[in-house]
Amino acid sequence: MFNVAVIGASGYTGAQLVSLISGHPQMSLQHVLVSENSQDAGKTIAQLHGNLAHLTQHVLEPLAPHRLAELANAMDAVFLATPHEASHDWMAELSAGKAKVFDLSGAFRLKDTEVFAKHYGFAHTSEACLEQAVYGLAEYNSEAIKQADIVAVPGCYPTASLLALKPLFNAGVLDESVRPIVNAVSGVSGAGRKASLGTSFYEVSLQAYGVLGHRHTPEIESHLGTPVIFTPHLGNFKRGILATVTVKLKSGTSQTALDKLYSDVYGEQPVVRLRESFPKIDDVAHTPYCDLHWKVDEQSGYAVITSAIDNVMKGAASQAMQCANLALGLAATEGLIHG
Amino acid sequence: MFNVAVIGASGYTGAQLVSLISGHPQMSLQHVLVSENSQDAGKTIAQLHGNLAHLTQHVLEPLAPHRLAELANAMDAVFLATPHEASHDWMAELSAGKAKVFDLSGAFRLKDTEVFAKHYGFAHTSEACLEQAVYGLAEYNSEAIKQADIVAVPGCYPTASLLALKPLFNAGVLDESVRPIVNAVSGVSGAGRKASLGTSFYEVSLQAYGVLGHRHTPEIESHLGTPVIFTPHLGNFKRGILATVTVKLKSGTSQTALDKLYSDVYGEQPVVRLRESFPKIDDVAHTPYCDLHWKVDEQSGYAVITSAIDNVMKGAASQAMQCANLALGLAATEGLIHG
Amino acid sequence: MFNVAVIGASGYTGAQLVSLISGHPQMSLQHVLVSENSQDAGKTIAQLHGNLAHLTQHVLEPLAPHRLAELANAMDAVFLATPHEASHDWMAELSAGKAKVFDLSGAFRLKDTEVFAKHYGFAHTSEACLEQAVYGLAEYNSEAIKQADIVAVPGCYPTASLLALKPLFNAGVLDESVRPIVNAVSGVSGAGRKASLGTSFYEVSLQAYGVLGHRHTPEIESHLGTPVIFTPHLGNFKRGILATVTVKLKSGTSQTALDKLYSDVYGEQPVVRLRESFPKIDDVAHTPYCDLHWKVDEQSGYAVITSAIDNVMKGAASQAMQCANLALGLAATEGLIHG
Amino acid sequence: MFNVAVIGASGYTGAQLVSLISGHPQMSLQHVLVSENSQDAGKTIAQLHGNLAHLTQHVLEPLAPHRLAELANAMDAVFLATPHEASHDWMAELSAGKAKVFDLSGAFRLKDTEVFAKHYGFAHTSEACLEQAVYGLAEYNSEAIKQADIVAVPGCYPTASLLALKPLFNAGVLDESVRPIVNAVSGVSGAGRKASLGTSFYEVSLQAYGVLGHRHTPEIESHLGTPVIFTPHLGNFKRGILATVTVKLKSGTSQTALDKLYSDVYGEQPVVRLRESFPKIDDVAHTPYCDLHWKVDEQSGYAVITSAIDNVMKGAASQAMQCANLALGLAATEGLIHG
Repeated sequence: MFNVAVIGASGYTGAQLVSLISGHPQMSLQHVLVSENSQDAGKTIAQLHGNLAHLTQHVLEPLAPHRLAELANAMDAVFLATPHEASHDWMAELSAGKAKVFDLSGAFRLKDTEVFAKHYGFAHTSEACLEQAVYGLAEYNSEAIKQADIVAVPGCYPTASLLALKPLFNAGVLDESVRPIVNAVSGVSGAGRKASLGTSFYEVSLQAYGVLGHRHTPEIESHLGTPVIFTPHLGNFKRGILATVTVKLKSGTSQTALDKLYSDVYGEQPVVRLRESFPKIDDVAHTPYCDLHWKVDEQSGYAVITSAIDNVMKGAASQAMQCANLALGLAATEGLIHG
Repeated sequence: MFNVAVIGASGYTGAQLVSLISGHPQMSLQHVLVSENSQDAGKTIAQLHGNLAHLTQHVLEPLAPHRLAELANAMDAVFLATPHEASHDWMAELSAGKAKVFDLSGAFRLKDTEVFAKHYGFAHTSEACLEQAVYGLAEYNSEAIKQADIVAVPGCYPTASLLALKPLFNAGVLDESVRPIVNAVSGVSGAGRKASLGTSFYEVSLQAYGVLGHRHTPEIESHLGTPVIFTPHLGNFKRGILATVTVKLKSGTSQTALDKLYSDVYGEQPVVRLRESFPKIDDVAHTPYCDLHWKVDEQSGYAVITSAIDNVMKGAASQAMQCANLALGLAATEGLIHG
Repeated sequence: MFNVAVIGASGYTGAQLVSLISGHPQMSLQHVLVSENSQDAGKTIAQLHGNLAHLTQHVLEPLAPHRLAELANAMDAVFLATPHEASHDWMAELSAGKAKVFDLSGAFRLKDTEVFAKHYGFAHTSEACLEQAVYGLAEYNSEAIKQADIVAVPGCYPTASLLALKPLFNAGVLDESVRPIVNAVSGVSGAGRKASLGTSFYEVSLQAYGVLGHRHTPEIESHLGTPVIFTPHLGNFKRGILATVTVKLKSGTSQTALDKLYSDVYGEQPVVRLRESFPKIDDVAHTPYCDLHWKVDEQSGYAVITSAIDNVMKGAASQAMQCANLALGLAATEGLIHG
Repeated sequence: MFNVAVIGASGYTGAQLVSLISGHPQMSLQHVLVSENSQDAGKTIAQLHGNLAHLTQHVLEPLAPHRLAELANAMDAVFLATPHEASHDWMAELSAGKAKVFDLSGAFRLKDTEVFAKHYGFAHTSEACLEQAVYGLAEYNSEAIKQADIVAVPGCYPTASLLALKPLFNAGVLDESVRPIVNAVSGVSGAGRKASLGTSFYEVSLQAYGVLGHRHTPEIESHLGTPVIFTPHLGNFKRGILATVTVKLKSGTSQTALDKLYSDVYGEQPVVRLRESFPKIDDVAHTPYCDLHWKVDEQSGYAVITSAIDNVMKGAASQAMQCANLALGLAATEGLIHG
């Protein structure tokens, strides 16, 4: 059994990690932690998250600074479901011991520190860790993840976008005179667990935000290799992202060619499901899957691909778990797929 | 044209009042006000409430204390969509002039100040106003409302509950050995416009609250005349209340008797619709109507009545407007029913 | 008072028309009709549509063939909220009298009968009517609508799309080497009032459909003047469309230029609201408005515009009413805007 | 490994069973069947239920009559997620072999065939099976279930209601002069997977139905032991039931007494969670749990208990699995609780 800790267990992603670890046959949840001054310290996971009401044994511990080194040495894996700043500040110490660290924040996803500073609002000074960090898109970087001590788990929108786009870009079939257009709609859990007028029930209704300036744009671009136009939207549902991707293909690229391409790339991947029709959010909600479907208009050369994930799962917790499984030498889907 | 002001126009009820007044053929909206220190002062109604984006001419004014007397003398009607404490504190001054005041808070609904203090958490010291205040359940108190200077507009749950129960109680057909059981589900707008974890989109899901202790219980009881068991629930929708009322009838009370009773009481009432089947929330959402339907089990003597209203309309703004219409000598539904 | 009939009053659009006409100060609803064999014939509007429970006086009449000529001569306006085939078949007779006809189906929106046949599945043989029909996009064709006997009321997606795109295309600022990409999400009412597994509550969840082949694509293209890529989605809400439009602008087109352009085109239009931020569906639900906002990325030359309408209102019934008002010599928004 | 078949796998409950069996460590899914004339025969489970898109190996077989005996002899367990009539007609043959049969219809839940005929609309003629059938409320009948060849899996509303009420009735603390009042709201999946106007997305909105006449009333009454007033409602969500139960307690019954009572009855039960506050639907959605909380008004003697389950899980599939586990000699929660 591997000893595991979750830091930031009061949020939706943290709670999902706790749930996954509790059901994992080879992990033992040793610590669930919250920030040192959190009002949630001392409560059980069950008190915060009604769906985990049976997990009364896990008490949220405050993360005093001296705990970092302790966790680094005592744990096999630490999951950071924390704000960007916290992950940034704690990574050096956390990753100095035997524990492999899986960071679900945005702190270690962008190698370019100028771009980082512009989009995250603070300077990146954890440069050694940043260099070391492996981008945890499990379907592409599994060998690096297996060796990694620090994994930057991809953002939710980038996961949905990259799984749709990378096969096309890598195969060289994109007509680069037209930028890929990614329109994505996310459930409200993407905004995190907090009181906010913008995510209050009465206020939520389909709406674009972060237009032409969202921080996931450089994440998509840097891990894809070409610029995109990315427009996120808030949707009136709790979990899930549907990304609708429109691309112009190089002249002569057929439907059959794309069918073969996606099948070649993902045919053996356990959590990417190549669908026979366009997926809906509910097909993937509460699951670790990414569902893909595509259609080519051979006359115009445009193609539309839609990509559906659960933002809390494949967009965060279950992808982190895929990475942890790989890094710990287990099957990628251990503890993720029960039926 | 009657000159009208709305105090507390940043909330959902205030915005609904602004919308109703803007469409009212005989009212002119002179002032929209917020509390003196509100960050919303200086903004337009349009900036706060996207659905009123065309109302760019109304700027939210801060309510400095000296404005109370000014409004009292210059306005024909003032609507108070304010916290209980504010209504309580301002009423004496506001009601001292020519303006008739329509208070949508709970400050003047309970005549018993001991019960008030227990449920509202502060002592009632505006006793002259409290004595003067008329309970604005328009279907029952229209004569008093016409003469009133202060109208305490009923709460949302009491409106739905009383419209279902008063015909039965007044006709003496309730078997008082069994308390009427009111189970009601309210949309999230009932909780007001504010950032709160409990009303955030991800958290909202059908749930009972305020069980056996909600402050609307004494309001229902005192305006009905007999004790009830009232259990409110938060529902996953934006507007509306459905109250399901179960009562035991005196032996021998038939379905036909209830049919006749409701028809006699409400047949001529313009906003109570006696339905041929059990109403749903959407039947009344965005409308001033209360929809009622009932069924008697003649064997057991129990009956079930359901009552549906829009909590922001008949449960607040449109009921306040019914009262204002009556008090200003207009038809009760002026500005409320267009089609 | 103008005498008015609605054919197809059992559906959502028909019911909305009935509601609008009932509240219209200069229209008198004479007849509400359904198809000759409809099981709804003989019922009241109130029985079918709970939200219109007070409209018990309107009984649905079966439309026997001989009624067409009668309606054509007796009515001032007839609204057709009927299937494409029915509108197609009945138009010649209906438009032969004094009545002006407002068709909410797709039967008379495409002038090219080959394209029509491909997308609607039957041959267009009502060619004289087709030639005569005016496309009822009120913000663009008001002079023609005033003179028209037949108005083809635009589809819901085309309305949202064209109001966003036409200012750009007409001003010549689009870089035509990149097709405008329209991603739109519609509420379920867009699918009509009928029993269907695909629109059952449990099944609905955000999903693309009609990808690269929806019949609204040629409608947008023919009334815009350039090809587009249009991807519709079904969303988990009842009413509303949000269209997110991505375009490439000609080099050097600035944010300021677009601000001025939209303001010049729509500044005086009563139901287009130029917003200060990206609109959400709820801003326009149950209203006749189209809300627009846009942002330009001056570096890349791409721009994103979002356009929000209520599909049952500006996407159907209220737009039909704008057209009827114009054709009958009234103000365009008569009976549409109350507050 | 136990060999298992699911009959009626095209519906929501059938699909949930398939999912549970696929993840069960000691069951092997041998057959998934639909009715002989179903249009779904020949499709995979994956084609019907998008969330099971990875289960492409299971093809729906048509259930020809001769298959009943074959299944009865070859399977260890057969789940019937079929209409009442089908379960009724097939049970004798299905239960004649080695297979234990778990029927999720209402066919074998009521021992009184007169009451059955009145509520189900057909005469019960499978009397031997009816006598043999054990009511599968696992928390109460586990010993009988272990021995049973036929288990009548309880209805969704009865499960939620009985788990709340049986501790009170069995302990003799109910004041029987007042009937227990059960108000329950169910998600739309309770209506099954079919095209129907009443469950179409646009039409669904909180509404009472089956008032004073629902067929689950006699099921609750017969397995509780005393009459109740049961009012079901359709809610605007996909999964879950919240039952709000109001009872009058015998004089002097305290909060403490109820706390102890529920703790004594359910303290060791693995899927009943005694909560510290009133549960919400989302706490139990997609889980096998029943969450309970209660409050006593010691002055009036009334108490309110709320009970939350997922209607597709504890109200159907996971309860059937609890029964199957018991009947096959496994731990009750095998394959149900992963974390």
